[in-house]
Amino acid sequence: MENTIVPFELSKEYFDRFSEAVELRDDIFIKESLDGIKYEDITTLLEEFNAEESGYVLSLLSKEIAADVMVGLDEEVRFSFIKSKDPSEVAEYVEFLETDDAADILNEMPVKFREEVLANIKSKEKSRHLLELLRYEEDCAGGLMAKEIIKTNLNWNVVQTIEEIRRQAEKVEKIYSVYVVDDDNVLLGRVALKKIILSNDHTLIKDIYESDHLHVYTYQHEEEVADLMRKYDLEAVPVVNVSDQLVGRITIDDIVDVITEQAEQERQLMAGISEDVEEDDSVWLLTRARLPWLVIGLFGGLVGARFISIFEADLSAVTALAFFIPLVTATGGNVGIQSSALVVQSLVNPSAFSSGLKSKLLKVLLVAIVNGLFLAGIVFGLVFLTNSLKLASVVSIALFNVVLLASLMGTLVPLALDKLGFNPALASGPFITTANDLIGLAVYFVVAHTLYNI
Amino acid sequence: MENTIVPFELSKEYFDRFSEAVELRDDIFIKESLDGIKYEDITTLLEEFNAEESGYVLSLLSKEIAADVMVGLDEEVRFSFIKSKDPSEVAEYVEFLETDDAADILNEMPVKFREEVLANIKSKEKSRHLLELLRYEEDCAGGLMAKEIIKTNLNWNVVQTIEEIRRQAEKVEKIYSVYVVDDDNVLLGRVALKKIILSNDHTLIKDIYESDHLHVYTYQHEEEVADLMRKYDLEAVPVVNVSDQLVGRITIDDIVDVITEQAEQERQLMAGISEDVEEDDSVWLLTRARLPWLVIGLFGGLVGARFISIFEADLSAVTALAFFIPLVTATGGNVGIQSSALVVQSLVNPSAFSSGLKSKLLKVLLVAIVNGLFLAGIVFGLVFLTNSLKLASVVSIALFNVVLLASLMGTLVPLALDKLGFNPALASGPFITTANDLIGLAVYFVVAHTLYNI
Repeated sequence: MENTIVPFELSKEYFDRFSEAVELRDDIFIKESLDGIKYEDITTLLEEFNAEESGYVLSLLSKEIAADVMVGLDEEVRFSFIKSKDPSEVAEYVEFLETDDAADILNEMPVKFREEVLANIKSKEKSRHLLELLRYEEDCAGGLMAKEIIKTNLNWNVVQTIEEIRRQAEKVEKIYSVYVVDDDNVLLGRVALKKIILSNDHTLIKDIYESDHLHVYTYQHEEEVADLMRKYDLEAVPVVNVSDQLVGRITIDDIVDVITEQAEQERQLMAGISEDVEEDDSVWLLTRARLPWLVIGLFGGLVGARFISIFEADLSAVTALAFFIPLVTATGGNVGIQSSALVVQSLVNPSAFSSGLKSKLLKVLLVAIVNGLFLAGIVFGLVFLTNSLKLASVVSIALFNVVLLASLMGTLVPLALDKLGFNPALASGPFITTANDLIGLAVYFVVAHTLYNI
Repeated sequence: MENTIVPFELSKEYFDRFSEAVELRDDIFIKESLDGIKYEDITTLLEEFNAEESGYVLSLLSKEIAADVMVGLDEEVRFSFIKSKDPSEVAEYVEFLETDDAADILNEMPVKFREEVLANIKSKEKSRHLLELLRYEEDCAGGLMAKEIIKTNLNWNVVQTIEEIRRQAEKVEKIYSVYVVDDDNVLLGRVALKKIILSNDHTLIKDIYESDHLHVYTYQHEEEVADLMRKYDLEAVPVVNVSDQLVGRITIDDIVDVITEQAEQERQLMAGISEDVEEDDSVWLLTRARLPWLVIGLFGGLVGARFISIFEADLSAVTALAFFIPLVTATGGNVGIQSSALVVQSLVNPSAFSSGLKSKLLKVLLVAIVNGLFLAGIVFGLVFLTNSLKLASVVSIALFNVVLLASLMGTLVPLALDKLGFNPALASGPFITTANDLIGLAVYFVVAHTLYNI
């Protein structure tokens, strides 16, 4: 048995004992208790400690394990650990990482430090690969890919390919397929490991490979890569440059991270949280992330107050008008968020032929009319029973129009944001609520003023 | 070259030509133009057609391709196609599917029809596997897993293992690892294909396998499986029963679907959409999905109206009180949604040691006090400049309290929903907005009534 990995349950007892060991700088306990533990579990454990404590634990681990643990830690913690080391020592850590993770970490360093680290990397191939990866934006295929790939030539046979796998095996952690290229390194397809195992040694690759055209270009956006891998259930996808030459591969675990981050970002935008924070961040960070949209909402409310004050005379005459202000604004907000969520969904999962803007708006209007009539009908009946016919008319007419306007706003704003390059989920947050509050107030008071002064 | 797959770009021209062919029942064009196209692309194409048209196209495809296409279609379309066939014919389609997809489809059929299909499946092993899979709930590991696995015995050598791979290769589409079991089928670990390729024929499995304890139990919930696979970057995970015997495997593509669906469900809950609808569903479906929460919001608004009416005397005396109703309710809503989104996030990505409820609430209160003081300060200044000191005091005191209460509500409600087994994201939607509107109104008018009657 080559590799014994201890199953690890992070118990409260162990955590307390470990915390004590960190505090007392008990090197021996820490080293012994982490021996044989998966690096992902060590990362989870260190997430409970601050930068200084994590740095201390990292320095007790072998460079190989510490490098992998580091990849999963918070950027501040990682950066503070790296800053405390010489570039030559950092280079030793980097050599243990796959190129995609190594490039991400190098990207976080100041340029001069990064250059010094690169100069200290012993493998010339690796530093050349890293230099290449650093050229790409982080959110495109080039920025996601790793250089570790196993490829074979169309004209090679199975034995030659197995030799190539042997040469590269140590560098490439997980092998899904062997990519097939021609003499100019142009990607032609792939051959599954299964097929290599089951083929005769002298079988030529060109007789067993699949000419599969699923690949991405270095410049494609990570969401396009995610869509492709999701659609075709791919565990890895080859990356080619503009000349169709094979330059790297992206694995599904990176795409799972992209999808998870997208969902998280969307939730934050919908909730009006302007920074990537977590419940256990500091009070200061949490406040900073939450205040901007609250202040914008507040100024929206102040504009609303100023607006209502224009109609002070109507309000003095019919105090009951004030009763239905929250009903009108809340309904506008709810309708707007529903509409924008549906648009965001259609933007996230576009169908092959999305209908044109015109037919989309017509549909939105139809749904709004049905919803609006229903809601206005209920409100008319109930207000008429308890108040005057006039007030019932004002509230229900205003409500119907607010439902229409909020539906249109909720549909057009995310589409516009998307066109302008912003995340459309922004439109499902406090932004649309604030805008719809103001629209609701305007409609309500204009209708009231008109009807009461006939 | 064994397998030529044509790269497929769904152009508008092709789509129009294809639609025409569907209308004219042009079998030849449809068969020829779909020949060699990936089944995922055919699924995408058929998504633009109704059940009857899709059924017609499916019946022109080979059973093998049609079976794979069907898996990705909407349930109604699939069901209507299946209903039009005899159980014996459906059995032929099912035989081409991997067991996890086959079980999902069987699950959608009426029990009697399903039994008839199962009785018609020729491979006895397959029908036994399917019967086993049908026992599990759809959202647990047993319901997600496929029975297609390649396993080897601890005491076998590499040649015996390759023989086993050869025997199973046709059934198992993608092989990531070969699982290692003992004589009682108890899972011991796995051996990577890479290692099999690079090892000598007579090497014993027990000398090269990794005793890796990452597995899931059949009864574990799909979200636990997703968390495990995400944490350890797994492309597949073995599933064991309570006796630790290997019974199946789950692949990452199914987990990507789980993660994507979770995000979608959360978006809908946050937006107050009560059914899984898409923009291009019918007006009737869209209305049905949107009305329930709108009506609940409406009744919330009517309760609010009744509440304000209690303070009619105050409002008549100080009309300006009405100006700030939207400001107070909107801020309460915004704060509540932010708080609940943070709680939902911490429930989705739990840290190893989440702090207790007490320290959590203390933190929430601290953040709320800082935010509340800041917002109340701005409002006090601005209202004081344009109105009276008394009104400025009422609005700012009410606002501060609303921020505190909305923060607490936004934190406690999702925690309570989670405890009760509901999706906590429900608390970030119209539910919390409506509740906070009412709390905001209550606080505002009670403060106003108190201060104006001193």
